[in-house]
Amino acid sequence: MSSPIRTQWTRLIRFVAAETAQVHLGQPVDPAIDVGLAAHKGQIITAHEVLGRALDPAARVSSTVLTVKHLLSPLAREEVGYARCLGLNYADHAAEANLPAPPFPVLFVKPPSALIGPGAPITIPRAAQPPKEHLPDYEVELVIVIGKPAKDVSEADALDYVLGYTGANDVSFRKHQMAVSQWGFSKGFDNTNPLGPCLVAAAAIPDPQALPLRCTLNGTVVQDGHTSQQIFTVRQTIAFLSQGTTLAPGSIILTGTPKGVGFVKHPPLFMRHGDEVRVWVGGGIGTLVNEVREAGVEGKARL
Amino acid sequence: MSSPIRTQWTRLIRFVAAETAQVHLGQPVDPAIDVGLAAHKGQIITAHEVLGRALDPAARVSSTVLTVKHLLSPLAREEVGYARCLGLNYADHAAEANLPAPPFPVLFVKPPSALIGPGAPITIPRAAQPPKEHLPDYEVELVIVIGKPAKDVSEADALDYVLGYTGANDVSFRKHQMAVSQWGFSKGFDNTNPLGPCLVAAAAIPDPQALPLRCTLNGTVVQDGHTSQQIFTVRQTIAFLSQGTTLAPGSIILTGTPKGVGFVKHPPLFMRHGDEVRVWVGGGIGTLVNEVREAGVEGKARL
Repeated sequence: MSSPIRTQWTRLIRFVAAETAQVHLGQPVDPAIDVGLAAHKGQIITAHEVLGRALDPAARVSSTVLTVKHLLSPLAREEVGYARCLGLNYADHAAEANLPAPPFPVLFVKPPSALIGPGAPITIPRAAQPPKEHLPDYEVELVIVIGKPAKDVSEADALDYVLGYTGANDVSFRKHQMAVSQWGFSKGFDNTNPLGPCLVAAAAIPDPQALPLRCTLNGTVVQDGHTSQQIFTVRQTIAFLSQGTTLAPGSIILTGTPKGVGFVKHPPLFMRHGDEVRVWVGGGIGTLVNEVREAGVEGKARL
Repeated sequence: MSSPIRTQWTRLIRFVAAETAQVHLGQPVDPAIDVGLAAHKGQIITAHEVLGRALDPAARVSSTVLTVKHLLSPLAREEVGYARCLGLNYADHAAEANLPAPPFPVLFVKPPSALIGPGAPITIPRAAQPPKEHLPDYEVELVIVIGKPAKDVSEADALDYVLGYTGANDVSFRKHQMAVSQWGFSKGFDNTNPLGPCLVAAAAIPDPQALPLRCTLNGTVVQDGHTSQQIFTVRQTIAFLSQGTTLAPGSIILTGTPKGVGFVKHPPLFMRHGDEVRVWVGGGIGTLVNEVREAGVEGKARL
């Protein structure tokens, strides 16, 4: 049971190919390209086709080269299911929110309908549009992707269950979040949570506590953090959450956000219709670029 | 979009048939039988086979009669996905817990791996067994089953999206629940949440606020409530949760528990290995009978 998951691919993307107009998996030909940023700039991205499913460790990199027409999240909604998310998992974020560090990982969950891909609009639902105070906030996060069923796993073995890592923007509607004790509803609106752009294989990120991550709103850096600040490491998170609970392959865990969120700034900083928000995670994961749109005027969401 | 869902069946069960050893849907031949109680007593239960899927309103009652060998939950885990659950939704329960009534519905979510069927053991995970204080508590609840995609639905139209109603025991591990602010982890362990036994069609329960519900632990009535005590009605719950959020067909919503839970009793009352717990909801939904077992000695879970 406990041996690391080895994949043929190092960085996986999912996309609609210009050549076929179909959805494919691929590995970028340029090993250093930030596909999310390149797609946003309209640069041509090519990838070797990966044959098989992302969750199948036997998926293999072929010699076929395809051109990216639309970039999608590395995993489809139906592969991911609900997203597990940690709250208050960075020491610097707990401090800025004036909250004590929690004694155990703080789990909430959001539905698959919340997930969107790189470049898709983050949707402000009608229920949270002006004149109501909606207060949508950004949160850059490192995401764990589980690759084989994990239950009652030890910290020592925890990384053996990781298929890879990706990034997310855990967009949070603070008014709804603060109104009641539980956070899932306020962070689970349809088409609010960008996921991606690359799924980087676990073998390529041997130490998930050594990753920088950053969020930029309309060109200004608002979060500039590092996973070494995590209160519960990736190992501890998997060990804790797998207690008595099967983490199925494809399960994703958003591991919390570093300091710099908008609602604690003076004055508070929230996202508005037309804003552009970017979240970047290191280790080859890359940048998610998304615009913020009020429901009714957004484009079609993709994942 | 807004017209009530009409089904041919009034009460739906899912079961393995003695005649075929396969899983079938059915409508009990005896319209008054409490299938959960009858199955527990080893009585013979017969049902007219229902052809089609539970979530397909065109599913039809056939003349074929089958005998129940094992009763299952009316919906399979993969049909349900994650379960939405309300906390603190009964005035009498909020009062006994000494907590203010929340201003909005309080949502948490549990994974499909938590769900089990009638008669299956409720499993105390290794992480919550003695000598640790695990404090597993019972919670009888009315469950809404959504039948067609619901988003931004009004209270007036909300019941048109309901396929039917069933029951659940939202078993809660209080030590884990009280340790952090969010409740999903402590209420989401594998094989802890009985669901069923009957799915009663929405048309047969025109007023979901007129249902009695009861929980019995080892033969003693510990909860004896009524859905008229709900702080947020079924209509209000659907309207609130569908704001900016698509409730997919098959989504279930556990609507909270009435007073009588164990952790507020003097002295506190918790479930232990070997206990038998029954939750009953009126309107023809019936009784879930489940034993409590520590992981490692439980039987095989079914749903």
